[in-house]
Amino acid sequence: MQRFRLTVEYDGRPYMGWQRQAHGPSVQGAIEQAIFEVTGERTTVEGAGRTDAGVHARAMTAHTDIEKPLAPFRLSEALNARLRLAGEPVAILTAAPAATDFHARFSCRGREYCYRILCRRAPLTFHRGLVWRRPKPLDLDSMRQAAAHLVGRHDFTTFRHVHCQAASPLKTLDRLDVEAHGDEVRVQAAARSFLQHQVRSMVGALVFVGEGRWTADELKAALDARNRAALPLNAPADGLWFMAARY
Amino acid sequence: MQRFRLTVEYDGRPYMGWQRQAHGPSVQGAIEQAIFEVTGERTTVEGAGRTDAGVHARAMTAHTDIEKPLAPFRLSEALNARLRLAGEPVAILTAAPAATDFHARFSCRGREYCYRILCRRAPLTFHRGLVWRRPKPLDLDSMRQAAAHLVGRHDFTTFRHVHCQAASPLKTLDRLDVEAHGDEVRVQAAARSFLQHQVRSMVGALVFVGEGRWTADELKAALDARNRAALPLNAPADGLWFMAARY
Repeated sequence: MQRFRLTVEYDGRPYMGWQRQAHGPSVQGAIEQAIFEVTGERTTVEGAGRTDAGVHARAMTAHTDIEKPLAPFRLSEALNARLRLAGEPVAILTAAPAATDFHARFSCRGREYCYRILCRRAPLTFHRGLVWRRPKPLDLDSMRQAAAHLVGRHDFTTFRHVHCQAASPLKTLDRLDVEAHGDEVRVQAAARSFLQHQVRSMVGALVFVGEGRWTADELKAALDARNRAALPLNAPADGLWFMAARY
Repeated sequence: MQRFRLTVEYDGRPYMGWQRQAHGPSVQGAIEQAIFEVTGERTTVEGAGRTDAGVHARAMTAHTDIEKPLAPFRLSEALNARLRLAGEPVAILTAAPAATDFHARFSCRGREYCYRILCRRAPLTFHRGLVWRRPKPLDLDSMRQAAAHLVGRHDFTTFRHVHCQAASPLKTLDRLDVEAHGDEVRVQAAARSFLQHQVRSMVGALVFVGEGRWTADELKAALDARNRAALPLNAPADGLWFMAARY
């Protein structure tokens, strides 16, 4: 038996999310099916993050155990060939041997997300489902002021999904940067871990500030309220990209 | 009657190309249909370039004449609403009044294309159909040496489609830059006008050089041969983006 560490890129549009589902396509299910076709083995692929429906990944880290002796490069080539044949927009960017105590989820010490917002009136074309379109320009300075209130250790109850199953709403947000790239605004978030919908909730509130509908202080008050009902806007899955897992 | 100048962005994947076709979807046809739905008028939309099937545009310039009195902003909003409703990945970025002697194609003094190449073994995911994947890294220095042979005024017979209908194969290429952006290589081409498949042919030959299968001098010899059969590789439509038209 060999444990492999995989780096996976995927287009989240056709999937119900990372996690295997009984009644719909998932990224995990697509990779596990490809492994079965290559090895004949039914195995579980664990990811660093269980992204929601419609969320994308540039570099999700995952691990899996395989009995059949296979060199890492052969494994990634074979999996990619199967995924491609099946029309799954999932790619194994790298495969490497891993120690048996390496766990993509539990060993992970840091996760990075990028949220892409495109500011324009015109509808999306090639980037449909890949970014969040907002019709008005955003005030980046006020967004940065507001973001500063979120960085650090806080009770993020306001910024978590009502069904979030984490034991505690306390999280430490290491970074929440707001950057402009032409008419695109990117919010870069980094933390050891995030609550369910935390990035999308924070981005929704930041956009509310950027559009002048809230001050940075109002966002701070919403954080302090520790109440999901205080969140004015949740950003859609479209613009959310899992960028990297750190170990 | 008012002539309008439009800036159009489109995802070329579902289209047989810019030009209206009897037996398949076209970008021109999609916009003309939207105009008909908004105004009740059957009009022709002329573009600066007639891009091939699968070629995309970030900013195609087009013009059209409309009888119904409509402010430019109202026109673009109405067209975008129709295009969106019809599921067409086409967006009118801007609409402006134009003089009646403005012609998107014949008044155009410069056209810019970008060709996107992604160098990696793994298959494409979210960028499928939007870039050309090449499994091996490219030698940019030798590509730049080869590109220098193509810049200037030449007989581009080697680099034109056999069915190209231009009267002369003589064209002046103003710019052919090769740039790296991470694992993506972009070839930026600018000229007053291009022959059919000229950018794709030049990129195919440059990639042949970048992969070490040709020297820059061999590309020069192919240009001098003035013979389509001397072209080793034609790049697919996927990676080609019409970037701008200058007037």
